[in-house]
Amino acid sequence: MIRAAQDRLDGHVRRTPLLTSPFLDEIAGRRVWVKPECLQHTGSFKFRGGWSAVSAMDPDVRARGVLAFSSGNHGQGVTLAATRHGAPVVIVMPSDAPKMKIDNTRALGAEVVLYDRANDDRNAIAAELSTARGLTLIKPFDEPQVIAGQGTCGLEIAEQAKSEGVTNADVLVCCGGGGFASGIALALEADAPGLRVRPVEPEGFDDMARSLASGVIESNSRRAGSLCDAIITPQPGDLTFPIISRLAGPGLVVSEDEALHAVALAFSRLKLVAEPGGAVALAAALFHGDEIEGGDVIVTISGGNVDADVFRIALERFAA
Amino acid sequence: MIRAAQDRLDGHVRRTPLLTSPFLDEIAGRRVWVKPECLQHTGSFKFRGGWSAVSAMDPDVRARGVLAFSSGNHGQGVTLAATRHGAPVVIVMPSDAPKMKIDNTRALGAEVVLYDRANDDRNAIAAELSTARGLTLIKPFDEPQVIAGQGTCGLEIAEQAKSEGVTNADVLVCCGGGGFASGIALALEADAPGLRVRPVEPEGFDDMARSLASGVIESNSRRAGSLCDAIITPQPGDLTFPIISRLAGPGLVVSEDEALHAVALAFSRLKLVAEPGGAVALAAALFHGDEIEGGDVIVTISGGNVDADVFRIALERFAA
Repeated sequence: MIRAAQDRLDGHVRRTPLLTSPFLDEIAGRRVWVKPECLQHTGSFKFRGGWSAVSAMDPDVRARGVLAFSSGNHGQGVTLAATRHGAPVVIVMPSDAPKMKIDNTRALGAEVVLYDRANDDRNAIAAELSTARGLTLIKPFDEPQVIAGQGTCGLEIAEQAKSEGVTNADVLVCCGGGGFASGIALALEADAPGLRVRPVEPEGFDDMARSLASGVIESNSRRAGSLCDAIITPQPGDLTFPIISRLAGPGLVVSEDEALHAVALAFSRLKLVAEPGGAVALAAALFHGDEIEGGDVIVTISGGNVDADVFRIALERFAA
Repeated sequence: MIRAAQDRLDGHVRRTPLLTSPFLDEIAGRRVWVKPECLQHTGSFKFRGGWSAVSAMDPDVRARGVLAFSSGNHGQGVTLAATRHGAPVVIVMPSDAPKMKIDNTRALGAEVVLYDRANDDRNAIAAELSTARGLTLIKPFDEPQVIAGQGTCGLEIAEQAKSEGVTNADVLVCCGGGGFASGIALALEADAPGLRVRPVEPEGFDDMARSLASGVIESNSRRAGSLCDAIITPQPGDLTFPIISRLAGPGLVVSEDEALHAVALAFSRLKLVAEPGGAVALAAALFHGDEIEGGDVIVTISGGNVDADVFRIALERFAA
């Protein structure tokens, strides 16, 4: 499925490069390879899964339209994928989402339906829309074609690492529901068995790390309140967790300060804009080296959709 | 010479991608293709020219070491190129250069020699070093192997534009002494004759635009005092000007505010860190569209070595 997704994505997805910086290597004490999915269309890896899911649909079904819940990266990824297929797209967002995210999603071509987080049932809204208009829901991570799409990033990592002579390394993946981590893990299992996924999460939202440790799906007690909002989910997915459990190493957990510090270092050393949630894997490579195996480490930067205010905070606190 | 430089750079230089954003296209009113040399090693295109010059040297001469004047991008590019060739490298910098730039140049492996801008003659210092230690000076732009190295970016643009179906377009190039613009112009003359270089400069430092208009080399009255410091030079080069005069279209000039606005848009729409001088070409594409020909435009982002304070100003003033 991942290879089929790669064929469908060919010519539409960006093949992001694999970057390095001698300054980051020095901080980490090992060679750090960075896969910047912030440079992907719509600013995150989510475009891969969105394109994979939309392109795999029956054309008649697709023509009726697609639907997603998202205040962020998944919504933008699905929107651009749908509009480029000429399909109508409805994104259901909380009415208190940042105005910029609502505006961007609309500007990419979506019809945005707002709901009141306190009083409305978003599932009921979606069910109603789906029935009335024949829209197909694209879930953010627990959906095979979405996982297959995210896995195309893993195929690229396998090929790029091989061409750089890196055959044994941990691959640190920013982890919310686990779509990105599970897709990459499946791709590496096939193409680069010496590369091992390590999911990385922010403190307080380490449901995947705790689930991997206990062997059963664990939930977060909090649902919001992190600058790493892009990768905050209630718990691992029913499809993603068994894959990650079978293939990945232990989870890594970084503090919000470490994530902001990594944002500032991506700015100064890589010239990349990373969102805090998208920088947790880089933070783990730089500040949790003793929990990582191997002379090289590969990290994903999963997205760059960060508000200017938050970015300025990272620079004020951590840029030289 | 450009093709020979490309062979020498192969495997050492980054082949930067060609990026787009629907949001930028909408502002510009045409398709905007962005060549982000801020993602090049050392954060600017200068690494290309540095590597080209150092790799072309006789090995015995190179082993005695190289020398450059620079408080910025050229110094870092030459330093990394030299150290990766195992050659000693001395960078002569003004003692009032930003500490971070001095520190970075040292960290990349250079011996930094500081001089007092008010009282010392840097040419005398360089001549003395060169004689005493047999160092070879690598000039920042008026040097054939440096121009050839910068031209490799033009070969990439020609190939990438062709594969995107873009055969007629202006190519906006951030311009200081003209090494980048002349190298790209020569490459395009050979490989993509429908693509035409347009040098872009900041207001008050438009020596190239005025020189192109008058047909003779003109100087800037001011020598400093722009946030676009990376591309401020006294006047076009004796080698670069005739090339640009023969091959390029009229120069474009943008305000400092337009450059900062482009920095903010590169942040929000491309997830890239551009320095103000590196963003003048993007600013011209976005805000001077009536001076540009063609349905597509290609712009270089020449570098991303910007202080956090300056970047925060751009975000405060222009980020949504």
